[in-house]
Amino acid sequence: MWSIEDSQMMSLAIELAQKGMYTTRPNPSVGSVIVKDGEIVGEGYHIRAGGPHAEVYALNMAGSDAKGATAYVTLEPCSHYGRTPPCAKALIEHGVSRVVIAVTDPNPEVSGRGIAMLRDAGIRVDVGLMTEEAKQVNLGFLKRMEKGLPWVTVKLAASLDGKTALSNGVSKWITGPEARRDVQRLRARHCALVTGVETILADDPSLNVRHSELGSLASQLAPAEIHQPLRVVLDSQARLGHELNLFKIDSPILLVSTQAYPESVQAAWPPHVQSQVLAAVDSRIDLNALLSLLGESCNSVLVEAGATLAGAFVNQGLADEIVLYQAMKILGSQGRNLLTLDDFQAMSEVPKINLIDERKVGPDTRLTLRVSN
Amino acid sequence: MWSIEDSQMMSLAIELAQKGMYTTRPNPSVGSVIVKDGEIVGEGYHIRAGGPHAEVYALNMAGSDAKGATAYVTLEPCSHYGRTPPCAKALIEHGVSRVVIAVTDPNPEVSGRGIAMLRDAGIRVDVGLMTEEAKQVNLGFLKRMEKGLPWVTVKLAASLDGKTALSNGVSKWITGPEARRDVQRLRARHCALVTGVETILADDPSLNVRHSELGSLASQLAPAEIHQPLRVVLDSQARLGHELNLFKIDSPILLVSTQAYPESVQAAWPPHVQSQVLAAVDSRIDLNALLSLLGESCNSVLVEAGATLAGAFVNQGLADEIVLYQAMKILGSQGRNLLTLDDFQAMSEVPKINLIDERKVGPDTRLTLRVSN
Repeated sequence: MWSIEDSQMMSLAIELAQKGMYTTRPNPSVGSVIVKDGEIVGEGYHIRAGGPHAEVYALNMAGSDAKGATAYVTLEPCSHYGRTPPCAKALIEHGVSRVVIAVTDPNPEVSGRGIAMLRDAGIRVDVGLMTEEAKQVNLGFLKRMEKGLPWVTVKLAASLDGKTALSNGVSKWITGPEARRDVQRLRARHCALVTGVETILADDPSLNVRHSELGSLASQLAPAEIHQPLRVVLDSQARLGHELNLFKIDSPILLVSTQAYPESVQAAWPPHVQSQVLAAVDSRIDLNALLSLLGESCNSVLVEAGATLAGAFVNQGLADEIVLYQAMKILGSQGRNLLTLDDFQAMSEVPKINLIDERKVGPDTRLTLRVSN
Repeated sequence: MWSIEDSQMMSLAIELAQKGMYTTRPNPSVGSVIVKDGEIVGEGYHIRAGGPHAEVYALNMAGSDAKGATAYVTLEPCSHYGRTPPCAKALIEHGVSRVVIAVTDPNPEVSGRGIAMLRDAGIRVDVGLMTEEAKQVNLGFLKRMEKGLPWVTVKLAASLDGKTALSNGVSKWITGPEARRDVQRLRARHCALVTGVETILADDPSLNVRHSELGSLASQLAPAEIHQPLRVVLDSQARLGHELNLFKIDSPILLVSTQAYPESVQAAWPPHVQSQVLAAVDSRIDLNALLSLLGESCNSVLVEAGATLAGAFVNQGLADEIVLYQAMKILGSQGRNLLTLDDFQAMSEVPKINLIDERKVGPDTRLTLRVSN
């Protein structure tokens, strides 16, 4: 069904889509390539919400060459008037003769409408080329459209024997500077960071993305293009004051608790700090409720927390992915544990995880693990 | 100083030496290549103690072509009459004109004598090509010759969060069958296995090398060629009885304790079981004394033990290498810890380890780590 040219062009479209992963949210990252007589006459990708879609960039580049050409797009072209006119209409108007689509629109209310609009105009539409590969670029967007929940990545860092700190709490530095820069890039592509009050009280972190620490990404992403993730702190007992490094960075913060903060405390917060009371489960914040809330606007959430909170996401089947930075160190049994999970009684009860990527990050190893829930 | 041909030929000699690593002990593994006018005219490696040395195999293959040739050897040729005549003499008699040596003899009493004998006969001798690479093949032999102590490898297996079992002790199976076969190969190249009484009481293992489980090595090593390692059990309180799987395999066992076993228990042991009383330190067996004892006959020791004993070797600076099989699983904080070490108070106190090899073994990862003591 698919020619070698089809696969090559869709691969290129997926590569283009990946370029948008730091900037398109809450929109999906989409790439498009237009090919005529074996020549690429147009290519493009969606850069940011509100700006042109991938197909529009590619069609504009192709101009009159789009007539009779094949358009490859990683996600079904839209059929509705939003902030931009529908891409299906643009493809029809430019006279393309064939459209190849990797992934159909995940929104059940509009899925298939773009395809139908194209077919009604007499355009041949082929669907399903490299679907799995294309989905990897938009895991968060796809999950949110399908379930109303964000993709959850749990970031962990530990020694080879799974310790995050010495018994006295010393953890500077288990991993090297390269791994810490990699965490900055990880933050930069997530919509929200979730941490616990214990982490704030212990380390007083800023939890922002710092352009100077983006490493290789810094040259591709100007400081103004960084989307600072929403910083979410789970503070069930509403204990946090306002003298925190967190508050000094002027980007949104959401404090989540199970009881309201005193008026006097709220009055002292800077304007970028909001709070939200959520239900409690066993005197802890209901993480399902939290994810439903974040799912209203966020495709992806990065959990950077201690063993208890990070473990709760894994334990409750709410983590989709674990990114583990592993240092080539051994801290010994006295060190602090990585993840607090249930006291499993059989090997069949432990979380099902699959390694999907492994690479060196300076002296450390970064493992990306997919969790089957 | 060294030509490309020199490096190529010494690389080949090192590869040949590696072929002996399962069979030459307590002798070193040595390889040799003889080259005349750019052609390899002889090659060989030491196969087993008591048999011909590498140079003899290579000279026999070269015959009269050895005259005027260059001989590459990974270890300084011997100069003494042992079970075989000195190799230096054989090289002289065959008329080689140049000898290239990677590593000098580590025994201070004879080091340099083979080189002197060759030079006295008018042969050009060049020493020091690929020394570090050649040393890796004989780490145990070299350490024992220099310090009277065996090379100590600590074998570990754990989940990504450094757990060796669930809280109830269930550990079957954290790693996959490929990793367990790899452990068989690891055992096959060590002179002795050291374990603790707790491991024997908990698992009742046989701790032997099983030809059927050697995987890719089985085709290179006939069952009769396997050197079964000496099985050493540390049983400080002399608690072990005699109804053990360990005793059913007819290969040497050494039970080490800090007090003698009762006569009646000793009388029930099969003849391949010996015992040895060693000094106690803090009511545990003195591991320095143990290694001195094993160093009388063993180049290398593999520690396969629980967190306490394995940790003691690392903690006391007695481990040279750690081989860690890491399963892509997370067992959680309730699981059992990997290594009991001191309660370190600063990151500078943790063991210094360097990753020297990392590879996939089925679904698991095997990390080889060198410890700087």
